[in-house]
Amino acid sequence: MLVQEYFKSRKQLLERSLKEFMPSPDDYPKNLNAAMNYSVFSDGKRLRPILFFATYEMLNGRKNISRLDRLLPAAAAIEMVHTASLIHDDLPSVDNSNERRGKPSCHKKYGEAVAILAGDALITKAIETLAKLKNKKEAVTAIEILTRAISTRGMIGGQAVDIISSRKKVNKNTLRYIHLKKTGSLLQACTELACVLFKAEDNLRITLGNFALNLGLAYQIVDDILDEVGSFDVLGKEAGGDAKQNKATYPSIFGLETSKSKAERLLRDCFNAIKNMPNNDILLEYINMIQERLP
Amino acid sequence: MLVQEYFKSRKQLLERSLKEFMPSPDDYPKNLNAAMNYSVFSDGKRLRPILFFATYEMLNGRKNISRLDRLLPAAAAIEMVHTASLIHDDLPSVDNSNERRGKPSCHKKYGEAVAILAGDALITKAIETLAKLKNKKEAVTAIEILTRAISTRGMIGGQAVDIISSRKKVNKNTLRYIHLKKTGSLLQACTELACVLFKAEDNLRITLGNFALNLGLAYQIVDDILDEVGSFDVLGKEAGGDAKQNKATYPSIFGLETSKSKAERLLRDCFNAIKNMPNNDILLEYINMIQERLP
Repeated sequence: MLVQEYFKSRKQLLERSLKEFMPSPDDYPKNLNAAMNYSVFSDGKRLRPILFFATYEMLNGRKNISRLDRLLPAAAAIEMVHTASLIHDDLPSVDNSNERRGKPSCHKKYGEAVAILAGDALITKAIETLAKLKNKKEAVTAIEILTRAISTRGMIGGQAVDIISSRKKVNKNTLRYIHLKKTGSLLQACTELACVLFKAEDNLRITLGNFALNLGLAYQIVDDILDEVGSFDVLGKEAGGDAKQNKATYPSIFGLETSKSKAERLLRDCFNAIKNMPNNDILLEYINMIQERLP
Repeated sequence: MLVQEYFKSRKQLLERSLKEFMPSPDDYPKNLNAAMNYSVFSDGKRLRPILFFATYEMLNGRKNISRLDRLLPAAAAIEMVHTASLIHDDLPSVDNSNERRGKPSCHKKYGEAVAILAGDALITKAIETLAKLKNKKEAVTAIEILTRAISTRGMIGGQAVDIISSRKKVNKNTLRYIHLKKTGSLLQACTELACVLFKAEDNLRITLGNFALNLGLAYQIVDDILDEVGSFDVLGKEAGGDAKQNKATYPSIFGLETSKSKAERLLRDCFNAIKNMPNNDILLEYINMIQERLP
């Protein structure tokens, strides 16, 4: 199967699972459910749940897509959490973004109060959905992994440090913490959830968890680099945004060349972690996608 | 044991369990963890976790307090969720409350962005804490109960309808929905969690769940009545707040006398549900506390 076809088919699978587990946009209370659906079905690339599918299928071998049915609650839960974080990040008191994927952000369309509640409800729905996993011991482990990824030791922690640090001089450890936690934590949960559902050994789970953390950090460094030198086409948003907001970036601390070699080194670590695993083509494509964005 | 001693000792037990399961206020990131601790340890009455303890001890008989150790994760989780809802309710775009229990509300002290994250983190921490219950099947059932109480069919749904309805003419079904969901849902989770940990039959769980829903609705109706006629002393806040905000209340829809008899009828239903159960003294005290506030 071609890589592009894989992404397309697993994206369709994810959309189907979201339709199954999300409340209907017409459910009462209507504004709230409509807001949740508006943000969840807003043409996201679904890279996180697809990474989760691909990790599982690397371990288990790629078989008939119908064999993936038991993965669907976890895949949907991952995307709900990602969406919740985008809704709360966009709020006026946080990143104050009026647009998201070319459309008004959730609070612009439904108001701030409903957007806050919609984010809360999506976190809650994600956990409810994981609780549906048939094997209850697996369900609890999956919930532990996802809540850690969301928590003060994960995405929320990263976002908090980012907020506290804005307009301050930030050292390299703090910047690394922000990038690892804001982006890496949920990616780590994607590969770890796949390991749990495959019943992988602990050391494999740690290896693939670190793979995802490094992937997330590399992605963020490349994003920082593109923000410094990039064009609108590659970045998908206006360049120079971080500098304008006085945000610390890898290039501002290390310079462009060192930042580039740091990103390349992380991607090499990612490659080395999985190079000997069979069926690793989709995970290699994740490395590739980041590599190709490097100017 | 006297009722007052019971409340005092179970409150101490709850404070101990919160200390055990909450992150330290000095943990990194400091502002975030400090904000969570500020709101959780702000001299709340802890009525929800105490209702949970009391329901369990009504079913199981009141034994040595050390036998309650396995209840502690659920007790802490209930209070964390309650606190999260207060933090997000107080936000400027929601109820815009600058004070809570005589101190600055969370966003007044730590800023809006950190308050949003602190609420998210407390919901997440509550689930993480429930996942620690030893029996994993019980843990999943407990998580299902708590997430339903938080969800679009619970507290969040009630808050959303309240927001959408403000400054609009509200009919009695909508007002009942708001009161039941905003207050009743979490109380229902308290008694149901006790039933699950006691391994009670389904019909008992339903009976005690409905007891708590009715208790919550009665509490809200009495609150509406006090807001109309009450004094600062009984209400603990300035009277007339709802009328000022043009919020629909039971007295505004039904008149004072009918509102009173509705509250009394609900309390009678609560009494009838538990009157024949042994060790029901603390649950009777919950009915009593609401009855005594009725002018």
